[in-house]
Amino acid sequence: MSRVAYVNGRYVPHAQAGVHIEDRGYQFADGVYEVIALIGGTFLDEEGHHERLERSLRELRIAQPMGRKALSHVLRETVRRNRLTSGIVYLQVTRGVARRDHPFPANAQPSLVVTARRIKGPSSQAVEQGVGVITTPDIRWLRRDIKSISLLPNVLAKQAARENKAYEAWLVGEDGVVHEGSSTNAWIVTKEGVLVTHPPADAILNGITRLGVLAAARKQGIRVEERPFTVDEARKAKEAFISSTTSHVIPVVAIDGQPVGNGHPGEITRALLAGYLAGFGLSSGSFL
Amino acid sequence: MSRVAYVNGRYVPHAQAGVHIEDRGYQFADGVYEVIALIGGTFLDEEGHHERLERSLRELRIAQPMGRKALSHVLRETVRRNRLTSGIVYLQVTRGVARRDHPFPANAQPSLVVTARRIKGPSSQAVEQGVGVITTPDIRWLRRDIKSISLLPNVLAKQAARENKAYEAWLVGEDGVVHEGSSTNAWIVTKEGVLVTHPPADAILNGITRLGVLAAARKQGIRVEERPFTVDEARKAKEAFISSTTSHVIPVVAIDGQPVGNGHPGEITRALLAGYLAGFGLSSGSFL
Repeated sequence: MSRVAYVNGRYVPHAQAGVHIEDRGYQFADGVYEVIALIGGTFLDEEGHHERLERSLRELRIAQPMGRKALSHVLRETVRRNRLTSGIVYLQVTRGVARRDHPFPANAQPSLVVTARRIKGPSSQAVEQGVGVITTPDIRWLRRDIKSISLLPNVLAKQAARENKAYEAWLVGEDGVVHEGSSTNAWIVTKEGVLVTHPPADAILNGITRLGVLAAARKQGIRVEERPFTVDEARKAKEAFISSTTSHVIPVVAIDGQPVGNGHPGEITRALLAGYLAGFGLSSGSFL
Repeated sequence: MSRVAYVNGRYVPHAQAGVHIEDRGYQFADGVYEVIALIGGTFLDEEGHHERLERSLRELRIAQPMGRKALSHVLRETVRRNRLTSGIVYLQVTRGVARRDHPFPANAQPSLVVTARRIKGPSSQAVEQGVGVITTPDIRWLRRDIKSISLLPNVLAKQAARENKAYEAWLVGEDGVVHEGSSTNAWIVTKEGVLVTHPPADAILNGITRLGVLAAARKQGIRVEERPFTVDEARKAKEAFISSTTSHVIPVVAIDGQPVGNGHPGEITRALLAGYLAGFGLSSGSFL
């Protein structure tokens, strides 16, 4: 079956889905996006994604292309037309089409693109055996709290990870603090069993999965500290992991080739993955 | 007459010129661009733009969509089909179309888009009376030497300038150093008559017009220092100005509402504009 995309009011064959060359998303990275996981017909935390999308748009003063209810309908219709039950929905909003000039155009209508597709989900090998990460300087712009399409540094970091046979790159500030991964949030569990992750701030994107993991931790009575941690502290941690919409929770067993803890996925990490999925009535068997 | 754009091998009506929604320029800001001025049928420093484009592509490991000679032909043909004698040519190269995933795709072909249009050029009022700039923190990513389409922070800065009735926003580091404008390079002339501008480094884009102004200054025997200068030093300077492909050289007579020097365009600034244009056999009368 051929894929269908939603583009500015129309459902079109994916292969022919286009935007104008002067869409400001193409010329200025002047837009934002969300990726929402769909498992067994259920969107994971759709409201959380709507809230973050609306915040990103407000911060950039891009008008909402439509209300939350209408957008939710488009997401569902895109899923339906692609006959998808599990996978991801991608949505992107830009400031619209206008003659190229830096300032906000006076009369542009925001563009909305929605796609949906199957994904494999995290491989069982990644979840069961854990993955390695590299560390690299965080060279991104300073408004990382906005989920903008200005992702070139993230692309370069992820490519560096791939070339170093790692799953992810952790982006590190000049002070040695781990901000987050190129497309995931970063976590450690200390020897004392405390779950630590960077506080939400301009330095990181407040992941929807991050919030789900925090909720799971609190439910399980795990002590949580939202505070900066350094690469050095991570190396000495008992456990480490990453979280994202598409990765859910994946154990990190090596940083720059050096083992974390005993070099195997940790118990708290496993418990948090189970707790996170249980929040949606799911188990890891739902997608593995 | 309707405009024509070049898109991936075809000349198409501008209104229908599109790219795929999964072009990495649209989803990741994974691309670069150049803007070349055309005055009286002559490209200003075309070779300089080719060189910088090729450097930007090399730094991002994006393949050149075609050789320099072929690209030069496309630029000329786009100009011809738009019956343009003066204006600007815009060209953009992205890593191409691929299923959305951060790492470099294995088999994508780079996309090439070229547009051309008339522009008014800097207004005679701006050139003769000077303009004001505001200062704002430089929140851009750290590879500003690459002319990437990752321009969202530049958009926000330029918009802030417009809302403060200023022509440009100067982007300032934490140490108070003026890096450059949101789409121009920044210059001052000290009380001693020394021309000062930020050295080419990761912190700034090495403007082609910047290089032309430096050449003009050397030809005129003006002392030049490529070194950082602060907002404070700029406020106390004798003259200030900005340079870019579309602005050429425009005097800056106010910074954050405070006059620079005597509040009028300076003599060295005027001489540099004349010298810059003379390098192409032009005078300011050529475009004003």
